[in-house]
Amino acid sequence: MKLMTVPETAEKIKSMEIRGAGRIARAAAEALRDHAQTLKAKDLQAFKKEMERSARVLIATRPTAVSLPNAVHIVMRGLGDERTVEEARAALVRRADGFIDSSRHAVEKIAQFGARHIRDGDTILTHCNSEVALGCIIEAHRQGRDIEVFATEVRPRNQGHITIRTLNDAGIRTNFIVDSAVRSFINDVDLVIVGADAVTVNGAVVNKIGTSQVAHTAKEARVNMIVATETYKFAPRTVMGEFIDIEERGPDEVLPEAVRKTLPNVTVRNPAFDVTPPEFIDLIVTEAGAIPPQMAYVIIREFLGWDIGEFGAETGPSGINGE
Amino acid sequence: MKLMTVPETAEKIKSMEIRGAGRIARAAAEALRDHAQTLKAKDLQAFKKEMERSARVLIATRPTAVSLPNAVHIVMRGLGDERTVEEARAALVRRADGFIDSSRHAVEKIAQFGARHIRDGDTILTHCNSEVALGCIIEAHRQGRDIEVFATEVRPRNQGHITIRTLNDAGIRTNFIVDSAVRSFINDVDLVIVGADAVTVNGAVVNKIGTSQVAHTAKEARVNMIVATETYKFAPRTVMGEFIDIEERGPDEVLPEAVRKTLPNVTVRNPAFDVTPPEFIDLIVTEAGAIPPQMAYVIIREFLGWDIGEFGAETGPSGINGE
Amino acid sequence: MKLMTVPETAEKIKSMEIRGAGRIARAAAEALRDHAQTLKAKDLQAFKKEMERSARVLIATRPTAVSLPNAVHIVMRGLGDERTVEEARAALVRRADGFIDSSRHAVEKIAQFGARHIRDGDTILTHCNSEVALGCIIEAHRQGRDIEVFATEVRPRNQGHITIRTLNDAGIRTNFIVDSAVRSFINDVDLVIVGADAVTVNGAVVNKIGTSQVAHTAKEARVNMIVATETYKFAPRTVMGEFIDIEERGPDEVLPEAVRKTLPNVTVRNPAFDVTPPEFIDLIVTEAGAIPPQMAYVIIREFLGWDIGEFGAETGPSGINGE
Amino acid sequence: MKLMTVPETAEKIKSMEIRGAGRIARAAAEALRDHAQTLKAKDLQAFKKEMERSARVLIATRPTAVSLPNAVHIVMRGLGDERTVEEARAALVRRADGFIDSSRHAVEKIAQFGARHIRDGDTILTHCNSEVALGCIIEAHRQGRDIEVFATEVRPRNQGHITIRTLNDAGIRTNFIVDSAVRSFINDVDLVIVGADAVTVNGAVVNKIGTSQVAHTAKEARVNMIVATETYKFAPRTVMGEFIDIEERGPDEVLPEAVRKTLPNVTVRNPAFDVTPPEFIDLIVTEAGAIPPQMAYVIIREFLGWDIGEFGAETGPSGINGE
Amino acid sequence: MKLMTVPETAEKIKSMEIRGAGRIARAAAEALRDHAQTLKAKDLQAFKKEMERSARVLIATRPTAVSLPNAVHIVMRGLGDERTVEEARAALVRRADGFIDSSRHAVEKIAQFGARHIRDGDTILTHCNSEVALGCIIEAHRQGRDIEVFATEVRPRNQGHITIRTLNDAGIRTNFIVDSAVRSFINDVDLVIVGADAVTVNGAVVNKIGTSQVAHTAKEARVNMIVATETYKFAPRTVMGEFIDIEERGPDEVLPEAVRKTLPNVTVRNPAFDVTPPEFIDLIVTEAGAIPPQMAYVIIREFLGWDIGEFGAETGPSGINGE
Amino acid sequence: MKLMTVPETAEKIKSMEIRGAGRIARAAAEALRDHAQTLKAKDLQAFKKEMERSARVLIATRPTAVSLPNAVHIVMRGLGDERTVEEARAALVRRADGFIDSSRHAVEKIAQFGARHIRDGDTILTHCNSEVALGCIIEAHRQGRDIEVFATEVRPRNQGHITIRTLNDAGIRTNFIVDSAVRSFINDVDLVIVGADAVTVNGAVVNKIGTSQVAHTAKEARVNMIVATETYKFAPRTVMGEFIDIEERGPDEVLPEAVRKTLPNVTVRNPAFDVTPPEFIDLIVTEAGAIPPQMAYVIIREFLGWDIGEFGAETGPSGINGE
Repeated sequence: MKLMTVPETAEKIKSMEIRGAGRIARAAAEALRDHAQTLKAKDLQAFKKEMERSARVLIATRPTAVSLPNAVHIVMRGLGDERTVEEARAALVRRADGFIDSSRHAVEKIAQFGARHIRDGDTILTHCNSEVALGCIIEAHRQGRDIEVFATEVRPRNQGHITIRTLNDAGIRTNFIVDSAVRSFINDVDLVIVGADAVTVNGAVVNKIGTSQVAHTAKEARVNMIVATETYKFAPRTVMGEFIDIEERGPDEVLPEAVRKTLPNVTVRNPAFDVTPPEFIDLIVTEAGAIPPQMAYVIIREFLGWDIGEFGAETGPSGINGE
Repeated sequence: MKLMTVPETAEKIKSMEIRGAGRIARAAAEALRDHAQTLKAKDLQAFKKEMERSARVLIATRPTAVSLPNAVHIVMRGLGDERTVEEARAALVRRADGFIDSSRHAVEKIAQFGARHIRDGDTILTHCNSEVALGCIIEAHRQGRDIEVFATEVRPRNQGHITIRTLNDAGIRTNFIVDSAVRSFINDVDLVIVGADAVTVNGAVVNKIGTSQVAHTAKEARVNMIVATETYKFAPRTVMGEFIDIEERGPDEVLPEAVRKTLPNVTVRNPAFDVTPPEFIDLIVTEAGAIPPQMAYVIIREFLGWDIGEFGAETGPSGINGE
Repeated sequence: MKLMTVPETAEKIKSMEIRGAGRIARAAAEALRDHAQTLKAKDLQAFKKEMERSARVLIATRPTAVSLPNAVHIVMRGLGDERTVEEARAALVRRADGFIDSSRHAVEKIAQFGARHIRDGDTILTHCNSEVALGCIIEAHRQGRDIEVFATEVRPRNQGHITIRTLNDAGIRTNFIVDSAVRSFINDVDLVIVGADAVTVNGAVVNKIGTSQVAHTAKEARVNMIVATETYKFAPRTVMGEFIDIEERGPDEVLPEAVRKTLPNVTVRNPAFDVTPPEFIDLIVTEAGAIPPQMAYVIIREFLGWDIGEFGAETGPSGINGE
Repeated sequence: MKLMTVPETAEKIKSMEIRGAGRIARAAAEALRDHAQTLKAKDLQAFKKEMERSARVLIATRPTAVSLPNAVHIVMRGLGDERTVEEARAALVRRADGFIDSSRHAVEKIAQFGARHIRDGDTILTHCNSEVALGCIIEAHRQGRDIEVFATEVRPRNQGHITIRTLNDAGIRTNFIVDSAVRSFINDVDLVIVGADAVTVNGAVVNKIGTSQVAHTAKEARVNMIVATETYKFAPRTVMGEFIDIEERGPDEVLPEAVRKTLPNVTVRNPAFDVTPPEFIDLIVTEAGAIPPQMAYVIIREFLGWDIGEFGAETGPSGINGE
Repeated sequence: MKLMTVPETAEKIKSMEIRGAGRIARAAAEALRDHAQTLKAKDLQAFKKEMERSARVLIATRPTAVSLPNAVHIVMRGLGDERTVEEARAALVRRADGFIDSSRHAVEKIAQFGARHIRDGDTILTHCNSEVALGCIIEAHRQGRDIEVFATEVRPRNQGHITIRTLNDAGIRTNFIVDSAVRSFINDVDLVIVGADAVTVNGAVVNKIGTSQVAHTAKEARVNMIVATETYKFAPRTVMGEFIDIEERGPDEVLPEAVRKTLPNVTVRNPAFDVTPPEFIDLIVTEAGAIPPQMAYVIIREFLGWDIGEFGAETGPSGINGE
Repeated sequence: MKLMTVPETAEKIKSMEIRGAGRIARAAAEALRDHAQTLKAKDLQAFKKEMERSARVLIATRPTAVSLPNAVHIVMRGLGDERTVEEARAALVRRADGFIDSSRHAVEKIAQFGARHIRDGDTILTHCNSEVALGCIIEAHRQGRDIEVFATEVRPRNQGHITIRTLNDAGIRTNFIVDSAVRSFINDVDLVIVGADAVTVNGAVVNKIGTSQVAHTAKEARVNMIVATETYKFAPRTVMGEFIDIEERGPDEVLPEAVRKTLPNVTVRNPAFDVTPPEFIDLIVTEAGAIPPQMAYVIIREFLGWDIGEFGAETGPSGINGE
């Protein structure tokens, strides 16, 4: 495989050729690793400086991403503490490979952990199309448990259509409902499992629009709610009080321009995500284990390795834009 | 206007040529009135018997309707207590005309009552496309109050598209959102107003799928929720413990057959309505005044005129099918 | 059947030879009726006076009963408005027979109404051993619905043992659990049905100890809760702010005296009933129809016929003692 | 006592010489009665017309009062159905005397009813200075129950100072706390009793600012909340969807003008009342008995005698201004 | 004291001769220590291998225990990092003795910490018969605070009988109630203290059946709920998404076989434990200090010393069976 | 600046000449530092002993303070681990200067973090007069966001008067309301920010009386609640189950003695603080970042540096008295 340079990777992330929180994160780690491996530097200081410049280039491509600065931070962490350029290079490569490897295995590990919460005979509801959430469900099915799923349509982009195809192809009995029908069926549901686009320091989960209504409805009916997510979705800058800004997408997804033109008093509001408060979430299942949502701060500090001191730096996610 | 006979009206209700709870109710009242006016009967007993037969014919057209048996009941009530055929005929015509008139004025009366709950500067959220709910909003606007509306898409049949056109044409600033986005905007909302397809004896409101999620979300944010509805939507048979059966509509509205064929493990579930419990409803505004939902029993007995004794009879609504 | 005199009936109610809310009520109505039928009185005034004396004798036997004063009140109501002793006698007999008849049919009517709330495939939970609550369940089973029941043990008197025998003999699949296990199984339950010992003016239900915990647990899991009860369990004196005093039964039911003697610092507290607030109750099913709990005031005034003016009188229930 | 003419009474109500919901109501009833007694009219029609003119004069003095139109309505109700002026005069006098008498006895009747909800050993919390609420407490004390009271300061007008003096003089142990301290002591409280300035059709209670926070805090701690109020505080026009407009009083009560002048960016907001939703209220104790808040509609129709038809008329309360 | 070999200890744990979470844990630590002290091994590798084999033997005796693998894990932790067999032997003995000692003192330390939450005049409710929970109560009494206790019966095994004897003998005023009566008395209670059989990673507490109903009832009445438990009850495998499987005990405890035989349609369901969610628990008091339930993850990692990496291993608790 | 000796500082803390949590903490650190710098000691042991004596003198001045023992603990931490007196002296000075510096910058850091939670157009409510809470608001204003504030009066000491002056002078539009009016305006509020007097190990916040009612009201309306506080307000001894004792201040603040004398049955209760449970708090913003309240235990251990072992020592806060 031909290696991509940092500018190439940056360009592809910017143009959304590379997309998806996991793929972006791994591409950035690879670009830094490859750059480090070929970089000629007169001393450690110069090596560090050039790598930091590259890191900034990558992060600047998606200033509101969450996984990207997490990946860059993990790869860059401690750079310059070594004694020689070669040691620094080797350590950076090791960290990058470690991150890539752990990121690749995270989904299956989460599937293993999450599947244990699904019992024989359970009915599970999921919203949107999360690889890790579906991973838990399919793994439980693979282990022979007799399960059934409710999947929502997920307006306006109808990601539910992809979800039911995946479940159908896995041979899992699936019920397809409009987003508004969750409360009508929630008493038949034993467990809700969804993914996450970001997790804030107090355990709030940013996920596809509608997730917080599902969670609220599950809470009302005493149905447990699990969020399945890789740790690199935890948003360090929220420790500094940074908001997760919720992206509003264009109105065309909801109402075609031709119609909108005839409705001058009507404005389409189209937030891509919403925020589910921690009190609606029973467990967050990550590749680092299952945790209560309030433990997000510990994940950010111990697994992602951010120190409070670092939060003043320029890097760090401040929003969500569907990376 | 050429009069329709009872069989003609019955046929048109059955074939859904006449549709909408109000129109069905008035058509039935008219048919009974016209029949009574021309009916030749040898005595009061015969007159009553024939009218009762006609009433049964009408009710049988839509066994799960709510407004139809209410209308028939009001028109037929007390029939036979008079002394002569002529007296009975006159009384029946009077009751029918009274019902038709009151039914026709109900919407504007409700609009008057409901508009008083809307203050200058308020933002109102509505779900689905209810004539009476929109009537309240438009009346408040007409009275010069500066208001703004959030309207939902209302999957799967997108009745929200009609709603926003009505509001747009009335010159009201309107925001259009997917059903899943209600919780994201509810803190900007001052009041929720929706209509009803039926109201049960304990004040639960049967309305378009998604209404109960909207109500639940409004409750969470301490936003008041008003249901605007004519009294003939109150369902007498629920006094006898009868369920409102929630109609499930065909899967095509949600997923085209061509797609469904490729998904053998997937079933579409498509309930047309859901049930909002009384604790989520602050007020039901009817043409008989504003009431708390728990007052439904009194409306059924005093305004619709049903006695407990009558509930054993065959007539009476037992469900909802979008009459 | 040999008629009982008023003193005989009074004695048997006092000695608890006649027991159970329904039987006590009917016995009192019969005693008054029989007395009226044979009573010789010089004028209407004397007739009324003697009947009122008899009424007081009966009520005095169980000063805290609920059904007893309700029955007496219904039989005595309007006495003296007639013109002659014979008219008064006939009217009283008519009212007594009416009450007895309606009381006898109440259970089956409630069963009919209540059974309509049970759907095919439902799992129902019941607490204690209520004839009317079980009536609803058995009627649903008789109508061919496939149902399953959870029944509690009901400490300290283990009335659950009678309940499961009744259900077993009716051929209904039944799960038997200790009172503490309700929350563990409530998510498998579709509906809770219990009886009532009394209903207060604001719709609170006095029933066997533990009922309010069951109701609270059902509410938490969004499981509907129905109370099945005859209207003569509604307690008129609560309209006057009268408390339902909760009887505390002897400690022997909970801990044998031999053990208690060895535990000088231990006191047994053994309330026979508890109070379930109206917000935990979805519907009260009576022979007069299904109502929301808040409608209790209307039942007391319109079905039991109490006027506010009368509440100052000596008669009227003020408590509950397991009549 | 020298009789006052209608204009005199109207003037005294307007100038707030006559104040307090009960006194205003009785003064209006007296003025109408006295006017009727001396009024010379050529026929029934003229008598009725003049009385209606007088009624309008009285109501116009306080367009947002609640008790005033209730009193006038009760006195005027059915006027003109009689056959002669003398009959009409007599009937009006009877209704006026009835209302005045019932109004005068309402407080003590409510005290009787309310006191029954206070048990020996109870601790009661009250907010503001309500004659009827204090009546219940003092009556319980008078009957020998050992009770203790928490009373709040009631900013900004410190009505709590009057309350504690009344309780002190009655010999009742009283704790005095700032309004903010209610949640700190609520677990020591067995019952909350407050009065009402108005009750809306859905059972919401308008009362002194702070009442709804007390009620919310009581609900959180499962402490029962009773509202003690005369039926003439129930606001008929809310049946028509009329808001109770909450009066904002002048800023001087909260911050002296001298201080305000130095704070150009500061605005004082000083609402005199707030609205307690019905779900926080366990019982409303009126002279017509104790009722759940949802029963307000029945009180308005049956005790105050308003018909839906009348609600279109000009008279009727639409607000609250501390009458 | 004669030392027991690993097989002897394993046998006694298996046969339930050794029982109770604490005793089992200490017995396993002792067996490993004693085995290490006498074990002859040719090198460190062989020593470690043999000890690991012994550890597996012990854990296999109760595959669903929680304290057993925690004890074994603490004793075995880091084994093999030393340089010589002697160093390894010494370190293991040190860890075993440390665990045994800390385990023995845990109860009294928890009693000290927990007692500080009990104020003079408090009424405490406890459910089941927990040594640590009673320890807190008795310590508060010993320190001179005037307290009173409510203790439940704890069906079906009536552990409450032991609890009230312990409290009686400690001279503490105690009220004995059936499990169903908790909600009737909770407003008289200031604090609930119970023990735990296991604590999951998100702070849910597995304890005797009925605990979650007590906790739910306490929450409703704003009564604080404390769980007193040793840290070795925290269940590490729940970090991996493992369920705590709730053991169902035999039906005889609830209904004698002779009775069951006569009830073919009746099944006894007898779960030994239930799960109290973290939102019902205010504080968990351990020998390592008082913590909020969400801190369980930190306890598992820092006090029990489990790393995420280890969770894939075979050892680790996965259930609860009344060890 | 002339240095103060330890006894001088102790005296000024005692006499409340030095007051305010931050100033007390820094004064203690300075006193220890200055004493260490001039202390002559024959060896490390003697140096440590003398410093510990001084530390005890300082802590003894305010046995219930929270910030004081935290400051002393941080300065003294690890003392004696060094090899020489000079090393120990230097290390102590470094720790003292570090604490003083971090304490001085904490307010502005918290303002930076907290301000990010305030959006353009937000309305913020604050209670009492907290430097850090106001810091967040003023910083957001300084950054150009258009905001508006509601500030409460804060009876009985009217700290709200100082708050509105600060806000007024900062040019921020401010509404001033009595404490009782919070629920009337909360639906117009987007965010609540308050300070803290202490934070317990489970994330409960001790703050000015009334804070918990504000928080409860915000929760009801789904308005976020942020607590802004320096980490030295976290109370380590609560880890040991120590209560935060709520100081009751003298009655004069609430009711003048002259009035009290005339009211022998009236007692003033005047708690200075109340306790807001963690479930009402969305985020605690500290200079160490924003955290969920449940993370208090981690702050106490990792930022304040307390080990469980130390909690047995004599030092450590056990209450709050308005230091």
